[in-house]
Amino acid sequence: MIYLNGEILPSEKAQIHVSDLGLLRGYGIFDFFRAIDGQPIFIEDHLDRFENSARLMRLPIPESRERLREIILEIIRLNPHPLLGVKMVMTGGYSEDGYTPSEQSNLIVMGKPFEFKPADIGMKLMSMEYRREIPEIKTLNYIVPIRAIQQMKAQGADDLLYYRDGKISESSRSNIFIIKNEKIITPVDGALFGVTRKHILNFAKKHFIVEERDVTVQEFWEADEVFTTGSTKRIVAITKTDNQVFSDGKVGRITKKLQELFLEEEKANEKITL
Amino acid sequence: MIYLNGEILPSEKAQIHVSDLGLLRGYGIFDFFRAIDGQPIFIEDHLDRFENSARLMRLPIPESRERLREIILEIIRLNPHPLLGVKMVMTGGYSEDGYTPSEQSNLIVMGKPFEFKPADIGMKLMSMEYRREIPEIKTLNYIVPIRAIQQMKAQGADDLLYYRDGKISESSRSNIFIIKNEKIITPVDGALFGVTRKHILNFAKKHFIVEERDVTVQEFWEADEVFTTGSTKRIVAITKTDNQVFSDGKVGRITKKLQELFLEEEKANEKITL
Repeated sequence: MIYLNGEILPSEKAQIHVSDLGLLRGYGIFDFFRAIDGQPIFIEDHLDRFENSARLMRLPIPESRERLREIILEIIRLNPHPLLGVKMVMTGGYSEDGYTPSEQSNLIVMGKPFEFKPADIGMKLMSMEYRREIPEIKTLNYIVPIRAIQQMKAQGADDLLYYRDGKISESSRSNIFIIKNEKIITPVDGALFGVTRKHILNFAKKHFIVEERDVTVQEFWEADEVFTTGSTKRIVAITKTDNQVFSDGKVGRITKKLQELFLEEEKANEKITL
Repeated sequence: MIYLNGEILPSEKAQIHVSDLGLLRGYGIFDFFRAIDGQPIFIEDHLDRFENSARLMRLPIPESRERLREIILEIIRLNPHPLLGVKMVMTGGYSEDGYTPSEQSNLIVMGKPFEFKPADIGMKLMSMEYRREIPEIKTLNYIVPIRAIQQMKAQGADDLLYYRDGKISESSRSNIFIIKNEKIITPVDGALFGVTRKHILNFAKKHFIVEERDVTVQEFWEADEVFTTGSTKRIVAITKTDNQVFSDGKVGRITKKLQELFLEEEKANEKITL
């Protein structure tokens, strides 16, 4: 079942007219989070970010925050699954001229089961010179990374590492952290402020020195450990990028510690939500 | 009536499922051209460009060129209007995982009446530091210019002038030409290869010195005349950009000459199509 503009519809009936400005001009935003055993994880953070994306894109949200929260809980209830991914998409609505946003945004909320990658296996990245156009907004524009899927597969890579002007920023759908001499460092400029990233920064401070600042490409290559974070990933080690192996191709010691701390944080948050 | 994936449907029934990759990730291309009194203008050029965009985006076109041409003519016939805009949109199809393109692209062909701006009135641009991510492809991504609509309106501007690294590239949906000392100059890097642009370059050579090359921002400000070109515009004078007036706020002499030559070129092409 999918929520679309005020109605809850069977999935196959969730259709939008071809005059939608997301379809015609890529003009829209989204957010994504997990529900574990029916409990949405960090939902208030995701609602905060969705509202922020909407404001920066000048898209009015057609529902109040309270109503949106209710819709999300209803979609989770109607799509029962121990591990559900929930996606909210909002576009510039049905445009009269195919260019100017409508006053009425189109809003979709849908749920789909998904699986985590096992935490003890690392990922491989392929570096790419790129920076998202408006990195602070979770926009619909994924043209560049999707166009690179074939090249990525040919190199045996699972995802991308974006860099520009000698600095790294993020991966295609997740944040990047490096660890050097037990310090945990993550880029600010060019990176989306991930919800997982935010929680890691919060609790990691209690155990390690944490720095949010520019990270040069050079620093990346010289890192002791590298990991990536996101709502679909939690914390996943990056064991290889291009031809370089990190932390002997295994999940590093500090990355492993952070994975454990993150699960505790997530559980604590679940209790608050309940 | 709208063509959608093999069917011709009443406009209000042309709906796509929310799993479409154009909607979810902005992954798609389009092309646009005019039909005057039922005759598509420069249709082969537009089909060439559409095929090229599809190839560069790795999207298979679900119809042969012959069949696509037939569909276009059918859509023009079913939407009778002296001046019809025809738009083809093709996306990465219904994606299983909301990220990877389907083997079956979604293809839409639709027609909508439109009006030309009068040729004797100029437009005003607002300059903006920006370059499209993959300028050689007519992708669906118009997030940056659409987000600037309010700012543009506040400044009384009709459209944008993109520049980066000291060079101008194009407007949001049209090409830019400058005229200096009777030379006609248009940027190459960062500009979409417009069909109107191509025809102007062809016939203008017979009357003027024409240069396709980098155009600095400095050269732009010092131009004698500036004009913009596109399928919805033909040739329109730029009489102002930011606070600077060009050609005394009127359509310049050479711009006017090119407007006349372009109408002849268009008529000659119509006869070929007929």
